[in-house]
Amino acid sequence: MTPFMNKDFLLKSETARKLYHEHAAKMPIIDYHCHINPMEIYEDRKYNNITEVWLGGDHYKWRAMRSCGVPEYYVTGDASPEEKFQKWAEAMPNLIGNPLYHWTHLELQRYFGITEPLNGKNAMEIYEKCNKILAQPDMTVRGIIRKSNVKLICTTDDPADDLRAHELLAKDPTVPAVVLPAFRPDKAMRADKADFPQYVERLERVVGYPINNVTDMKKALAERIAYFDERGCSVSDHGLDSCFCEIMDDSALDEIFARAKRGEAITQKEQNAYHTALLIAVGKEYYKRGWVLQLHFGCLRDNSAKMFRQLGPDTGYDAVNDAPNGWGLAHLLSVLEDSDALGRTIVYSLNPSDNAMVGSIIGAFQTESALPGQIQQGSAWWFNDNKTGMEEQMRSLMNLGAMGTFNGMLTDSRSFLSYTRHEYFRRILCNLFGQLVEDGEYPADLDSLGQMVENISYYNTLHYFGFDKLIK
Amino acid sequence: MTPFMNKDFLLKSETARKLYHEHAAKMPIIDYHCHINPMEIYEDRKYNNITEVWLGGDHYKWRAMRSCGVPEYYVTGDASPEEKFQKWAEAMPNLIGNPLYHWTHLELQRYFGITEPLNGKNAMEIYEKCNKILAQPDMTVRGIIRKSNVKLICTTDDPADDLRAHELLAKDPTVPAVVLPAFRPDKAMRADKADFPQYVERLERVVGYPINNVTDMKKALAERIAYFDERGCSVSDHGLDSCFCEIMDDSALDEIFARAKRGEAITQKEQNAYHTALLIAVGKEYYKRGWVLQLHFGCLRDNSAKMFRQLGPDTGYDAVNDAPNGWGLAHLLSVLEDSDALGRTIVYSLNPSDNAMVGSIIGAFQTESALPGQIQQGSAWWFNDNKTGMEEQMRSLMNLGAMGTFNGMLTDSRSFLSYTRHEYFRRILCNLFGQLVEDGEYPADLDSLGQMVENISYYNTLHYFGFDKLIK
Amino acid sequence: MTPFMNKDFLLKSETARKLYHEHAAKMPIIDYHCHINPMEIYEDRKYNNITEVWLGGDHYKWRAMRSCGVPEYYVTGDASPEEKFQKWAEAMPNLIGNPLYHWTHLELQRYFGITEPLNGKNAMEIYEKCNKILAQPDMTVRGIIRKSNVKLICTTDDPADDLRAHELLAKDPTVPAVVLPAFRPDKAMRADKADFPQYVERLERVVGYPINNVTDMKKALAERIAYFDERGCSVSDHGLDSCFCEIMDDSALDEIFARAKRGEAITQKEQNAYHTALLIAVGKEYYKRGWVLQLHFGCLRDNSAKMFRQLGPDTGYDAVNDAPNGWGLAHLLSVLEDSDALGRTIVYSLNPSDNAMVGSIIGAFQTESALPGQIQQGSAWWFNDNKTGMEEQMRSLMNLGAMGTFNGMLTDSRSFLSYTRHEYFRRILCNLFGQLVEDGEYPADLDSLGQMVENISYYNTLHYFGFDKLIK
Repeated sequence: MTPFMNKDFLLKSETARKLYHEHAAKMPIIDYHCHINPMEIYEDRKYNNITEVWLGGDHYKWRAMRSCGVPEYYVTGDASPEEKFQKWAEAMPNLIGNPLYHWTHLELQRYFGITEPLNGKNAMEIYEKCNKILAQPDMTVRGIIRKSNVKLICTTDDPADDLRAHELLAKDPTVPAVVLPAFRPDKAMRADKADFPQYVERLERVVGYPINNVTDMKKALAERIAYFDERGCSVSDHGLDSCFCEIMDDSALDEIFARAKRGEAITQKEQNAYHTALLIAVGKEYYKRGWVLQLHFGCLRDNSAKMFRQLGPDTGYDAVNDAPNGWGLAHLLSVLEDSDALGRTIVYSLNPSDNAMVGSIIGAFQTESALPGQIQQGSAWWFNDNKTGMEEQMRSLMNLGAMGTFNGMLTDSRSFLSYTRHEYFRRILCNLFGQLVEDGEYPADLDSLGQMVENISYYNTLHYFGFDKLIK
Repeated sequence: MTPFMNKDFLLKSETARKLYHEHAAKMPIIDYHCHINPMEIYEDRKYNNITEVWLGGDHYKWRAMRSCGVPEYYVTGDASPEEKFQKWAEAMPNLIGNPLYHWTHLELQRYFGITEPLNGKNAMEIYEKCNKILAQPDMTVRGIIRKSNVKLICTTDDPADDLRAHELLAKDPTVPAVVLPAFRPDKAMRADKADFPQYVERLERVVGYPINNVTDMKKALAERIAYFDERGCSVSDHGLDSCFCEIMDDSALDEIFARAKRGEAITQKEQNAYHTALLIAVGKEYYKRGWVLQLHFGCLRDNSAKMFRQLGPDTGYDAVNDAPNGWGLAHLLSVLEDSDALGRTIVYSLNPSDNAMVGSIIGAFQTESALPGQIQQGSAWWFNDNKTGMEEQMRSLMNLGAMGTFNGMLTDSRSFLSYTRHEYFRRILCNLFGQLVEDGEYPADLDSLGQMVENISYYNTLHYFGFDKLIK
Repeated sequence: MTPFMNKDFLLKSETARKLYHEHAAKMPIIDYHCHINPMEIYEDRKYNNITEVWLGGDHYKWRAMRSCGVPEYYVTGDASPEEKFQKWAEAMPNLIGNPLYHWTHLELQRYFGITEPLNGKNAMEIYEKCNKILAQPDMTVRGIIRKSNVKLICTTDDPADDLRAHELLAKDPTVPAVVLPAFRPDKAMRADKADFPQYVERLERVVGYPINNVTDMKKALAERIAYFDERGCSVSDHGLDSCFCEIMDDSALDEIFARAKRGEAITQKEQNAYHTALLIAVGKEYYKRGWVLQLHFGCLRDNSAKMFRQLGPDTGYDAVNDAPNGWGLAHLLSVLEDSDALGRTIVYSLNPSDNAMVGSIIGAFQTESALPGQIQQGSAWWFNDNKTGMEEQMRSLMNLGAMGTFNGMLTDSRSFLSYTRHEYFRRILCNLFGQLVEDGEYPADLDSLGQMVENISYYNTLHYFGFDKLIK
């Protein structure tokens, strides 16, 4: 029996252990997609207690607590930090097999030196221990980044954002990692949403002129892309509910835009046409600058209308969608390619049943390029960010593509303690490779395998995004 | 090599074996969803031969025999019991890896003490042995229930049913298990089916007044719910082909109802609107009584028109549907929640590719409740009720939810010998938990794990359905 | 640690090794579906170099090279055979876990006696070795067929084809295998394609009369079926993007046909109706002759419009579709059954998420027949033709059907060296069976298991297609 989460956690073979300890473990982290607040890095935020770090904004944990029957008062309500932590600890044993179980204990081990399993009985003792450590001067946001060997972080930012935090960070030589913005223009593209008119107004104020039609909107976004580019951005991110590709002519699109700006309803088809046109327009801007395009889809958001009214978005009420995406994704990529708007692209579906569809479609767009793996399937995303989810995504990638070119892990996180998820991913990766060697399915050439592990852990991402010049 | 289906069947690790033998094995059974005939319990049916038990109504076996090229004469036709059993036994070896292979041998071992593998050669010998044992006085329906340590059974009943068998059972102190009805009003909700007008007439006779519009139908169903409630029912069950959520106003619904009652065609959209309205109406009734709502979907029924004309429904011609369900399920649950009609709910999809979708959607409706796991994903259903299907459902549940709150197994069966499927499930459960411990993914805290195994085998269901008061 | 791809490759248990070496390995090959050119067999083609065999037309490899960032010049462009081989070899290590990695090394081992792993360093050395062996007189197409113990091959042919190569092959007593045509009338059924009018013209020339309506088209195809039948054909093949079942009356169909023949657009619904009608018509012809119907679906073809303009179809730009197929497949099979047009049928979906849907639908059409497994799920197809894909397809088949009746492997290949894929499949099959025995899930009756392995490797296919009479 392997002891609980010891140094060989998830590494079942000798080859796996060598690959992890001699290669993966030492590689730095590039966290190229996350949702942390850059100002907290600039201001080097300190935490008052572990509840603040863990339960302040992590809707994964909120959701798990609710599933265990914990009343909302202890989740997002007015309960004290002690009470909330206690409830979280009590929920722990029920989360057997859940990634939160492993993430929690990885964070306890790596950042707090605590190796015992958390539960209702030892909750307050562990709470105190964690808080004592959080009070140490090296446990600020920057301290955590330094400890975690993070070299570069991309946040997620709205086109209307002035990127002030990023400007401050860029001027501060003491920041332990490069911190860059990412361009996420979803709000400009969702003409079907109730807040679209207000968002257009906000963007008008930023660019300084009225946005009255699709041409204006394209111009405004192109300006914001240039603005982001000047501040070091080289990654975009787009969230689609499902994939589509709907081509309409400019006059039809302008008519749709005008209606949406007046707050009038538009159909799904009209929304898709507007969205397609804008994706092509920003895609051209990304392509000519060598930016990476990220596409996230397969999501049903804010499913509980009741709780959305109470708590708003990103509070633990989203889910996996199962609407078909293949036709839309394939056609969208083809239209982008034909518009000189398809360069480096990372595709993520929230539905694990889409693995083969995504893995085979990206293989149809690896057009002539000096870059291996130009079109990537992103690492197992969100609800799939767990051991079996990552194994299935990598297994699918190996079956359908060139695993050696994979960019590997990103946290997609809202917490600074989540960098241990890179470790989690790397252990699973090394275990998969180790298994192939143990089973005689791949030669036991540890030098070449070790290099591949280092590439997937770090170097592929470094080169793919062109971060080589930025990281010393 | 592990011997064929010995006492450690499916238990690959020491931890798994301890968890099963010391915890799971001793727990009683609550079979909260099945299709057995309650009158057979009351009348304590005896069987003339093993063919009657096994091949009398089990369309799983019929289907398997047809796949092996057995002519219909030996499946549902006029062949003798000996001939039918012989054909079944001859099919056995071809069913390698099929759950029927394991179920058959579990039943032979547990109820008949036969450990040799069944095949064409020993068929008649085993046939005779089984019949001799079936002739013993303790091998009646009640004897089997007693032997199987079954404490409570929920049957599946139509709103128009008078529940006479249940009334008789309730008055009989010698019945070895509590037997309760479950409310399955599908026929009242399928205004698009040819037999809808006749069904409305039947319901009119039961309630004693004409049902001329949706308001009348809601009233009639509410009365029947009260009637079932008085007879101990606390569970409902709804079969949907695919999920939907279609809101229409009352006058439109009444117009749809009127057409359907006249036997005229209605569209899919109209059917969905009528169905949605009724689900909300009965949902309110369930909710205020603390009933459990079961939703079964993802099914294509009666696929062979030819064989449907010949044999009718439930004869082995159904299949897994792959139409999308996510949007409909999420919206339906939200509408129910907003109507005070969403309480304890168990969701089952027949499509195993839906696991992540279902597992993530239920996590969005775990509203404030004293009850852990208020919204459940049901155990792997029907075509998924096999080793890998159960492993995948539990693996998905662990990834996305709180496994410790899982209600576990039900048979969904038409045969009294199927209780061994609870054993099959528990072995798979213990093996999964054992593997996590062996691999260092969960602490080797056997007390806490043992308790969790007992909960999933028995106590969770006991508390979830409120059966505590009924079982001595 | 198991050595890299040694004689026990993929065989993890003693039982697996026995089943493979004593049973599977010695069975001949029937390759009942592939895309090789029969004239190359007749003319006994010789290869100038390994690049010609491997990279001449294999779009699996092209695609993998592009994913590794290899410029098109080295893929389908004007680079020399040495350069192309070098690039392929350099891509190899990145293809860890990809079936191409195993196929490549199986072919190197079995046909060239080369056991070292191919990579950029030893590329030219291996290139020379291979070419030397290819220059030997027994390494012609016929020599390879003989070495591979192939007894029968079905090619893929258009109804308008004169089958001249097959006539020549039939008259040549020195051909080492029976070579038969297969009837693939997709072009006659795709009235929505731009080349439909030209295709109708081509068919008119072949049958010698104008095809002006659906009745004419049915007549023409029936004549071609008779023509193929006389030349030994007993298998058809149909490619559907997704499944459908759309019934329209003859006059509507004739109007659709007329428009399509004039090169005018038809709707998806009209195409589906025309396609359904023709499937029923040819299905009747197949059925009365005892032909096997193959249905391939779930494909998105020619996804990159840019590369399609450059290279045409079948060049590595296809993908898995995720549109729902269940309703269409179930209804189509039922309509065929009701039209005396459903006999032996093999169903393949390109989407691995369809396994349960396909496996359960075929189980609903195993109508009375002397033949076990009349309706089959085809072996894991194309993007699923890899270790996990085959394991999942067989696991699903075992769960839902009668594994013992399975027809097993086919190559679907465009290369004569691909026969090793039968070995790959058989190793995976034996390993699955061996695991069941090792785990006590199936009795250790090696005689019966060995027979089943031989059946799935060879005899089931032999009997299913009625090839018994053709193979000496």
